[in-house]
Amino acid sequence: MKWKPMETYRAFVFILDGVGDRPIPELGFRTPLEVAKKPNMDYIAMRGMTGLADMIEPGVRPGTDTGHLAIFGYEPYRYYPGRGPLEAVGAGVELKPGDVALRCNLATVEEKDGKLIVVDRRAGRIKGKDAEELVKALNEAIKEVDGIKVEFHPATAHRVALVLRGKGLSPKVSNSDPGTAKEGNPIKEVLPLEDSEEAERTASILNKIIKLSYEVLKDHPINKRRIKEGKLPANIILTRGAGMVPLDLKSFEERFGVKGYVIAEEDTIIGLAKLLGMKAEVPEGATGDLESDVMAIGKRALEVYESTDADIIFVHIKGPDIAGHDANYLGKVKIIEKADEMIGYILKNTPEEKTVYAITADHSTPCSVRDHSGDPVPIAVKGPGCRVDKVKRYDEFSCAEGILGRIRGVNLIPIVLDLMNRRLKFGE
Amino acid sequence: MKWKPMETYRAFVFILDGVGDRPIPELGFRTPLEVAKKPNMDYIAMRGMTGLADMIEPGVRPGTDTGHLAIFGYEPYRYYPGRGPLEAVGAGVELKPGDVALRCNLATVEEKDGKLIVVDRRAGRIKGKDAEELVKALNEAIKEVDGIKVEFHPATAHRVALVLRGKGLSPKVSNSDPGTAKEGNPIKEVLPLEDSEEAERTASILNKIIKLSYEVLKDHPINKRRIKEGKLPANIILTRGAGMVPLDLKSFEERFGVKGYVIAEEDTIIGLAKLLGMKAEVPEGATGDLESDVMAIGKRALEVYESTDADIIFVHIKGPDIAGHDANYLGKVKIIEKADEMIGYILKNTPEEKTVYAITADHSTPCSVRDHSGDPVPIAVKGPGCRVDKVKRYDEFSCAEGILGRIRGVNLIPIVLDLMNRRLKFGE
Repeated sequence: MKWKPMETYRAFVFILDGVGDRPIPELGFRTPLEVAKKPNMDYIAMRGMTGLADMIEPGVRPGTDTGHLAIFGYEPYRYYPGRGPLEAVGAGVELKPGDVALRCNLATVEEKDGKLIVVDRRAGRIKGKDAEELVKALNEAIKEVDGIKVEFHPATAHRVALVLRGKGLSPKVSNSDPGTAKEGNPIKEVLPLEDSEEAERTASILNKIIKLSYEVLKDHPINKRRIKEGKLPANIILTRGAGMVPLDLKSFEERFGVKGYVIAEEDTIIGLAKLLGMKAEVPEGATGDLESDVMAIGKRALEVYESTDADIIFVHIKGPDIAGHDANYLGKVKIIEKADEMIGYILKNTPEEKTVYAITADHSTPCSVRDHSGDPVPIAVKGPGCRVDKVKRYDEFSCAEGILGRIRGVNLIPIVLDLMNRRLKFGE
Repeated sequence: MKWKPMETYRAFVFILDGVGDRPIPELGFRTPLEVAKKPNMDYIAMRGMTGLADMIEPGVRPGTDTGHLAIFGYEPYRYYPGRGPLEAVGAGVELKPGDVALRCNLATVEEKDGKLIVVDRRAGRIKGKDAEELVKALNEAIKEVDGIKVEFHPATAHRVALVLRGKGLSPKVSNSDPGTAKEGNPIKEVLPLEDSEEAERTASILNKIIKLSYEVLKDHPINKRRIKEGKLPANIILTRGAGMVPLDLKSFEERFGVKGYVIAEEDTIIGLAKLLGMKAEVPEGATGDLESDVMAIGKRALEVYESTDADIIFVHIKGPDIAGHDANYLGKVKIIEKADEMIGYILKNTPEEKTVYAITADHSTPCSVRDHSGDPVPIAVKGPGCRVDKVKRYDEFSCAEGILGRIRGVNLIPIVLDLMNRRLKFGE
C-alpha cells in the first residue's frame, strides 16, 4: 500500500447558486439537475461521497449571504454580521471585529413644527459627483462622536455605508429611516433595541450623527445649487440595517489553517470573502446571469490554482439562482450544463490524485417558488482515497441516498479539510 | 403480546478503537470491516439498528480521549478537560471539578545572565527513586501558594502531574516548557491566555511554583549526588498542557442514573472513566496491540457482568487503531476477527432477551491516512424488541443505510439507555 507521510492536498469547491429545485411538471416532474447533461458533476458524485446539506437548518430559507457564510464554514446564526456590514464590505470598505456598520440613504427632509419630515428617502435618487462631494463633506465634518470613530463611504447612487469604530458599541438599535412608510412622516429617533449600555450609547451616537449630518448638509453649496436647479437637496442621512462584525470573528486562515481564494459572480460574496480575510475577485467574463462566460470563470480558477498558494479555491456560478427566480427552468438546465463543462475543464487540468473536488449550492431556488426555499441542497465530495458510495448522479434525489446523509452547510469545509489531510485533531 | 412493566436491561458497549477505514486498493477497494469475517458483529447489525456516528462533528478528527468522552455521553466541546487533567487521572490522581492540572517535566536548567536556561527538558530522563524523592521534596516544601493547594504526583520517568486546587483558577495559561524549541533557550514565563482575573492569578501562582521548585531542588542532596556521578540534576519543573476539570462535570451515574464499568486497554481511557466516577480497569492479557488476548478481555467483561451491578459495561479493544496507524490492513482484518469472537462469547453467555448490545468506534483510523480521520464510524445497537432495519452487516457502507441515520457520538448512550428502559422522560 502506497502511503506518503503528511501529504496534503488542495481543493476546489464549486458553488452552484440556488441550483436545488423541486419537481417541475413541464420537465416530467424532474428537476433541472435531473434533466441536465452533466457528466462531470456525476463523475464527482460517482467517485465520491454524496448527501444533502441544510445550509442553516432544515426548512430555513438561506440568503446568498448566510448560505455562503455556511459554505465558508461559519455558523450563520453565530457569525452573520447583518446587512449593514455586508453592504459595506461589498462596497470595498475594510471592516474589523467590533465595527458597527449601517446602510444609509442620502435623503431630503423639511423642517415642520420643529420636526424633520422626510420628503424623499433617496434625495431624488442623487448620484455621481454630487453624492460623492456630500459624503466627503460629512467625512470632513464628522470624524468622531463621543470617542467613537465615524466613517462615511459612498456606495451606489444615494447609498452610503456608515461605519462606527471603537469600544462598547452594539448593533441592537432601531432605524431612523421610516422606510416603507409613506413619505411625509418624520424621521425616527434611533432607539436601543435591548437593555444594554452599549445599545443606548450607540443609539445616542447615531442620533447625534444624523443631527450633525443635517447641520453639515442643509446649507452645503451643492444643495443650494440643486435647489436652484429644481432638484431635491440631499440634506440628511437616514440609517438602517445596523450590524456588527462579531468580536470573535477569525479569518478563514486562522480558523482552518488553510488559505481560501474566492472567485464569485456577486459583490456580496466578494465582500463576505474579504471580511473573512480571503482573496476574492469577480473574474472577467462573469456577468452574474445566464449569459455569463462560465468557461472564462473556470479558466481564471485554474490560473489561480497554478499561480497562487491557495489551498481551497471556491468557484461561484450565479446563473442557476437567476433562472430559479425567473422560473426559467430551461435556462436553469442550460446554465447547469455550462457549469458542468467548466467543472470538466478543471478536472482535466488538475491532478485528481492530489485534489479534492466538492460541489454544493448556497440554497435551493425552485422555479415553482421563484425565491430561495428551505429545501436542502445536494452535495458531492471526492478526494484521494475517500469512501465512495453507490450514488452515481449529482441531483436532489440521488444524493439523498449517499453516505454523507443529511449534514449542515458548516460541515462541508471540515469534511473537505479532512480529505485534504489538513485537519487538526481535537484531542489526542 | 407479552409486556413486563418496568423491566430494565443491562448493556454491553463494544468500542473498536479506530476501526473505521477507507477503501483499500489491496483489499479490492474494500475496508477491513468489509473483508473481515465477523458473524457476531453482523448478527448485532442484522437484529438491530445501524447508522453512522460523528464522534465530534462531521469532518473533525477526534482523539482517543475526545472520542471516548463522546461515547461516554459527554459533549467533547463542552467537557474536554485537556491533556493535563487526563494525564493526571491516567496516572491515578483523583481530580474534582474546578481542579487545574498540568503536565510537568523534571528538567535541568542552568543560571546564565540572571536567566534560567533549559539544558535538558527531561533531566537526562531521570526516573525511579531519584524522581520520586525529588517529587516528595516538592510536595513537602510547596503545599500552598496564594491560598491554592498544590500537589505533585510522580508519573512515568521524568513526568510529574501538578494539581492546583481551590477557587478562582483558570486553565487559560501558557506553557513554561519551551517545548520543541531547541534546548539552550530560557524557560518561558507563564502568561495568561485570556483577559481574566482567574487566568492572571493562575499564571502568577505557576510562576511562583516554578521558581520555588528551583529553590527546593537546586541544592537537594540527590541532585548533588547526581552531579558528582556525572548525571544531569533535575533542578526545576517545567509546565505545559494546563486544563481544568469542568465545574459542572457530573459523574456518569449522576448524569444518566446508571452505573458504568469500563474495561479498556489504555490508561487514558481508564483515567477518563475514573474522572467520570466509573469503575475501570485494564484487564489481564490486554496488551493494547495486535497481540492482545482479546478473549481474556471478553472473559473479564463477563465476570464483571456476573459479579457486579454495573448497568453498562464498556469493552475497549485497541488493536484496530494500532493497525490503522501502521497501515497494517491485514492485521486490522485479523484483530477485527478476534474482537468478533470475543463478542460472540459475550452473546453466547448473556441472556439476549434482557441485554442491549452496541458496537461503535471512537474514531476512524484509515490505513491510507495512518492517523485518525474525520470519517464517521459505523454503529449498531440491538436490544430486546428494538426496531430492526434492513442492514445485515456491520461496516462503513452497510451501516450508512441504517435507520439510525447519521448521528453524533453523544447520542449513542441515550439510545442505549432507551432500549434498557432506563431513560427518564423529559417532560410528562
